[in-house]
Amino acid sequence: MRTTVGIIGAGPAGLLLARLLDEAGIDSVVLESRDRAYVERRQRAGILEQGTVDVLRAAGAGARMDREGLRHGGIELRFDRRRHRVDLPALTGGKSVTVYAQTEVCKDLIALRLATGGPLLFEAEALAVEDAETDGPLVRYRHQGREDVLECDYVVGCDGFRGVARKAVPPELSRVFERTYPYGWLGILADVPPSHDELVYARHERGFALLSMRSPSVTRAYLQVPEGTDADDWTDEEIWDELNRRLETDDPAWTLRRGPVTAKSVTPMRSYVHEPMRHGRLLLAGDAAHIVPPTGAKGLNLAVGDVVTLARALVLLREKGDPSGLDAYSETCLRRVWQAERFSYAMTTLLHRAPGATPFDDRIQLAGLDRITTARAAETDLAEAYTGFPFDEPQ
Amino acid sequence: MRTTVGIIGAGPAGLLLARLLDEAGIDSVVLESRDRAYVERRQRAGILEQGTVDVLRAAGAGARMDREGLRHGGIELRFDRRRHRVDLPALTGGKSVTVYAQTEVCKDLIALRLATGGPLLFEAEALAVEDAETDGPLVRYRHQGREDVLECDYVVGCDGFRGVARKAVPPELSRVFERTYPYGWLGILADVPPSHDELVYARHERGFALLSMRSPSVTRAYLQVPEGTDADDWTDEEIWDELNRRLETDDPAWTLRRGPVTAKSVTPMRSYVHEPMRHGRLLLAGDAAHIVPPTGAKGLNLAVGDVVTLARALVLLREKGDPSGLDAYSETCLRRVWQAERFSYAMTTLLHRAPGATPFDDRIQLAGLDRITTARAAETDLAEAYTGFPFDEPQ
Repeated sequence: MRTTVGIIGAGPAGLLLARLLDEAGIDSVVLESRDRAYVERRQRAGILEQGTVDVLRAAGAGARMDREGLRHGGIELRFDRRRHRVDLPALTGGKSVTVYAQTEVCKDLIALRLATGGPLLFEAEALAVEDAETDGPLVRYRHQGREDVLECDYVVGCDGFRGVARKAVPPELSRVFERTYPYGWLGILADVPPSHDELVYARHERGFALLSMRSPSVTRAYLQVPEGTDADDWTDEEIWDELNRRLETDDPAWTLRRGPVTAKSVTPMRSYVHEPMRHGRLLLAGDAAHIVPPTGAKGLNLAVGDVVTLARALVLLREKGDPSGLDAYSETCLRRVWQAERFSYAMTTLLHRAPGATPFDDRIQLAGLDRITTARAAETDLAEAYTGFPFDEPQ
Repeated sequence: MRTTVGIIGAGPAGLLLARLLDEAGIDSVVLESRDRAYVERRQRAGILEQGTVDVLRAAGAGARMDREGLRHGGIELRFDRRRHRVDLPALTGGKSVTVYAQTEVCKDLIALRLATGGPLLFEAEALAVEDAETDGPLVRYRHQGREDVLECDYVVGCDGFRGVARKAVPPELSRVFERTYPYGWLGILADVPPSHDELVYARHERGFALLSMRSPSVTRAYLQVPEGTDADDWTDEEIWDELNRRLETDDPAWTLRRGPVTAKSVTPMRSYVHEPMRHGRLLLAGDAAHIVPPTGAKGLNLAVGDVVTLARALVLLREKGDPSGLDAYSETCLRRVWQAERFSYAMTTLLHRAPGATPFDDRIQLAGLDRITTARAAETDLAEAYTGFPFDEPQ
């Protein structure tokens, strides 16, 4: 098989890139190792930045998001028994975020791709990217029991942190930047309306908690837990009790609504960047190139930023013969990536309790929150980062 | 001897407090363990916040400062061979900082104190504060070879980190917050005009450097050095060479001016807060209660903030019989103190190279500097903190 752009991975990065290329008349093939049901079911992020919403809408993938997504004009910071709302549009000239699960984004993009007839192969496992340094890179993959080759002009690795694409960059050309955290997030889905109509980020001596939602009837919530925690170490009742403790406030109007837990899992926390994001005719996008800890909800949005930059670069090359966008792809994305890495790291260390944290560390966290909640400049800095760094920042 | 306010220590905190009380007709006695020549010679900080300048001027101690002090409307951040000027007044509604050495502030305040006849005893070593919980606290001290007692209504400890005042707070009522850093500052004074007309804060892979000044003809400069470094480990030439390396930039207009080094010393880096800042009729101010690492130049200015708050509280009590200012003294100061601790810690970790720093840590520093130098909100947050937190912040 042969195509212009071979895309490995049908997550939001791969699917959106295929859509953006399709709109520009550039053909592509998407290879996805899992089956469709799995892709449409896996739980991931759920907060879309303003820019992500705008891109999905412009790509014709916004109809259900506009109907079912929940636009949020604020987030709440909770600490020291206090509540503080960060008014996102007021601080950013009108930007907000939208609660709409990544899995729903994927469903919408899959339906769109299948309707327009572009190739999207499920259970097509990429085995290796080869000849990235030549004009004819290819992807070896296994589909329906046999191995095949996808010949491409360009290969894009949207195959996540554990994918094969990144492995095609020679180690001597790779630079890896990494940090792990000695804690993770125990996340639940519960069939109960969320206890607050916006997200609540809570800093507590017992550890971080996040109260979120998937829909007006489904609560999503997270607890900081020690590294290596098994989700089954916690009963549902223990989880609700601990959420209640960490979300404590002097506001008598606050109560935590409890309900049946329908899913429970532990997410590790990691910061990771692979440089460069391009090697010859292989380009990396999303988790294949970088991971952020989930605090700040940047992962999905970074992936969208990458493929928006990449699609523009490929269109520029096709329409004007101008390779400058592609040549700048890695640098353009990495600048935004490092801002998101910085923000995600800062939010994580501001809100989580590190093992061995000293009383000094505690006070520094509280002083940081005090600053954000009393100084407009600091609050604006947070709101701008939370609603998203521009997708095409000038260099 | 008896007085209303017994002040231990003739540094800027003690001297300014005595002056402010004197202006309000409240009598005080200042005890200083060193002789006058020593106090007027010791090299300490040199950057006065806008609020500190305003207070000194209003206290009648601003004449020479206004003549000889250098008003600075900006600081330079240097990193990755780039130069960026932070325009302080433009970001803060007109605030600036003034270069005027602490030792000059002390000279001016000593002259004022001696001219107005208020007691200021040099070589009067405080030995202990006693009876702080009673209405009649006292200071035992040694002066001219004999021990004596200063009976007071209030005792104020302005005797620095190693002073005796803090020791009068019973350990079970003290909370100490502390952090040390695995590096220090090697500082020099040199008889050569400064190489730049504003301060330059440089982040470099080899470590932090700060280019400052004492006057238009005297350069003050610092290098981050490993903990335990002896100033004599470095020759003058090595210091200049290293400053030149760490201040490197792509700007061809930049050159480092070298000249004879007249003083050389190593300052350790420490964050420290003692809570509360009041015990009965003993009040702590300045370094007696808190230490910041020098990055951000907050130490002297915090001391000024403490005694401004304290003088107002004592005047309120004297004039209206209202003890509320004094009752709130510790809390009022600590809020500002923790903001300064947070800022000093953040500036220190943003600009210094920690032993064992990873490539990820390096990139986070660079991304932080990139953010400050490209996003107005982040730059404003820095400029507001640098020019100073309000001395009487509402609770």
